[in-house]
Amino acid sequence: MSGMDYRSSGVDIDEGERAVELMKESVRRTFTPGVLSDLGQFGGLFDAGFPEMDRPVLVASTDGVGTKLKVASMTGRYGTVGMDLVNHCVNDILVQGARPLFFMDYIACGTLSALTVAEIVSGLSAACRENGCALLGGETAEMPGFYEPGDYDVAGTIVGVVERSRIVDGSGIVPGDRLVGLPSSGLHTNGYSLARRVIFQEAGMGPDDSHPLLNGASVGETLLRVHRSYLEDLQPVLENGIVKGLAHITGGGIPGNLSRILPKGCGAVVRPEWPVPGIFRMIGELGSIDPEEMRRAFNMGLGMIVVVAAGDTDRAMDLLGGSGGFHAGVITAGGGIRFEN
Amino acid sequence: MSGMDYRSSGVDIDEGERAVELMKESVRRTFTPGVLSDLGQFGGLFDAGFPEMDRPVLVASTDGVGTKLKVASMTGRYGTVGMDLVNHCVNDILVQGARPLFFMDYIACGTLSALTVAEIVSGLSAACRENGCALLGGETAEMPGFYEPGDYDVAGTIVGVVERSRIVDGSGIVPGDRLVGLPSSGLHTNGYSLARRVIFQEAGMGPDDSHPLLNGASVGETLLRVHRSYLEDLQPVLENGIVKGLAHITGGGIPGNLSRILPKGCGAVVRPEWPVPGIFRMIGELGSIDPEEMRRAFNMGLGMIVVVAAGDTDRAMDLLGGSGGFHAGVITAGGGIRFEN
Repeated sequence: MSGMDYRSSGVDIDEGERAVELMKESVRRTFTPGVLSDLGQFGGLFDAGFPEMDRPVLVASTDGVGTKLKVASMTGRYGTVGMDLVNHCVNDILVQGARPLFFMDYIACGTLSALTVAEIVSGLSAACRENGCALLGGETAEMPGFYEPGDYDVAGTIVGVVERSRIVDGSGIVPGDRLVGLPSSGLHTNGYSLARRVIFQEAGMGPDDSHPLLNGASVGETLLRVHRSYLEDLQPVLENGIVKGLAHITGGGIPGNLSRILPKGCGAVVRPEWPVPGIFRMIGELGSIDPEEMRRAFNMGLGMIVVVAAGDTDRAMDLLGGSGGFHAGVITAGGGIRFEN
Repeated sequence: MSGMDYRSSGVDIDEGERAVELMKESVRRTFTPGVLSDLGQFGGLFDAGFPEMDRPVLVASTDGVGTKLKVASMTGRYGTVGMDLVNHCVNDILVQGARPLFFMDYIACGTLSALTVAEIVSGLSAACRENGCALLGGETAEMPGFYEPGDYDVAGTIVGVVERSRIVDGSGIVPGDRLVGLPSSGLHTNGYSLARRVIFQEAGMGPDDSHPLLNGASVGETLLRVHRSYLEDLQPVLENGIVKGLAHITGGGIPGNLSRILPKGCGAVVRPEWPVPGIFRMIGELGSIDPEEMRRAFNMGLGMIVVVAAGDTDRAMDLLGGSGGFHAGVITAGGGIRFEN
């Protein structure tokens, strides 16, 4: 038997180092003044002096991209899944009023391609820059036998900060308050296992096929549309102080996420006055999916819900102006979350 | 065609909710006074007021468990991989002088078993408690088609804090300084793809088999030994202020990790005066692995290296007392990292 080495076990340290070389510049371009370290240290350093704040509170969230990653490997397009992940995480802490400080990524695969990892990281770093968030560190793991060739799992953790007195937590919500919804760009990062099953298996479509409900776009590009960040959209309305609660519509849909911020005894009637995008109608029709199941699996066209007092609705609509807010319903006394047509 | 739902696509939301129910108590038990949120919120909240510090700096690190996870799924023992992950991350920020504040986990699988996830989380939370670190949040992702049945990927991010003037960065290291090594408990979390290939494929052993070099323990239990946290061991020597540099011996081994903290122009001669544990000798023999390759893939029995001035070596040994420090070599003027017998 000839001697074994690490490479013959499926781990290529050199290719990993090439990936680090390729990503260095795009990572450094995300560095904000708070970053006190460079690449290659054991941990990333970030200044925790927040001189402009009285009682700074860190807000942290971890998420993955889910099986949207399978659409990336089907199409060979890995450039946007990093944006999906960062924007998803930005929204998850934004709903508590926090602005992002830094992001840490985790990329895992069975056989590492330095170019693919660099493509994923370029998406992470582009979205980090857009959100004023440093890509402070991360881990790229080559795990032979864990992933199919071409499959990459991509997850990450965001850490942000909020003034304690400005934390948004929904506790002030009362019956009569209004829901204002902001449009999603598509499926964002939820419901992909169901969507893929319906589109690629049941309906037998390919990623380059289109459908009358997709306005000329292919299924692949429609499914890969980037999860929208609401950071810039919500800044004016957050600064104004009229926001009582924010729900990021992710897994569980509107019912699952709106319920997370409602005080005991409050429910909501959702009135879908917004246009449901074609991709959701297409999936529902192709899979003969029950409307209630659709609303639990998908965002149905609303990626963020803002709760404001009835009298602040017009001001909220004004402040959200360019983001295209929709009236989406009203808070009720109890009764769970119902949809009304 | 009957209507599709989320469960038929391979995602079981109810089983996910059962997992959350099962882990709740063990997660809450990790909560330290800094935690300002409860489970189920979009992001975890942590108090960033550090009244006892002049210039607090956050230190963050992300890591995974690697293919040690395959040993967990082979043996059906998922209770310790969470400890591996937390301790690994604790060490990664400890080498910059930081103490842990909070941890965020990411668990991904193809088919979610609530019991298995709860077992993994119980390990995470046990190690978090031991290290005084809150398990502030996390994500459990069921990704059909991504992972083999029984396989779970487990990764996480730690955030700690250090006083700016107490950051340990190796910049003061000069030729003549000494290396003091602390023993590892086994492979920790590195080299598992090579170890598994050699043990389970080349040598055809099973996890319940033993070997004369393993002192009666089985291969499975030897490989699953928990990655050691050095937080408590290093506290006295860190408080004493004599530590010039710390290297956590992970992927890349002693050469790859010691080189990360050496200033330009410095090298090291490593004198292996510590006993190399049987598991490493067994792997090297079974796989006929070149010694240099062994040292690049494995920690060889040293999990942490402390660099101190020559005159502080005895004091360092004293302060490390119970942790069993070994003389491990000396810093040189240039010359890379060489091993000398």
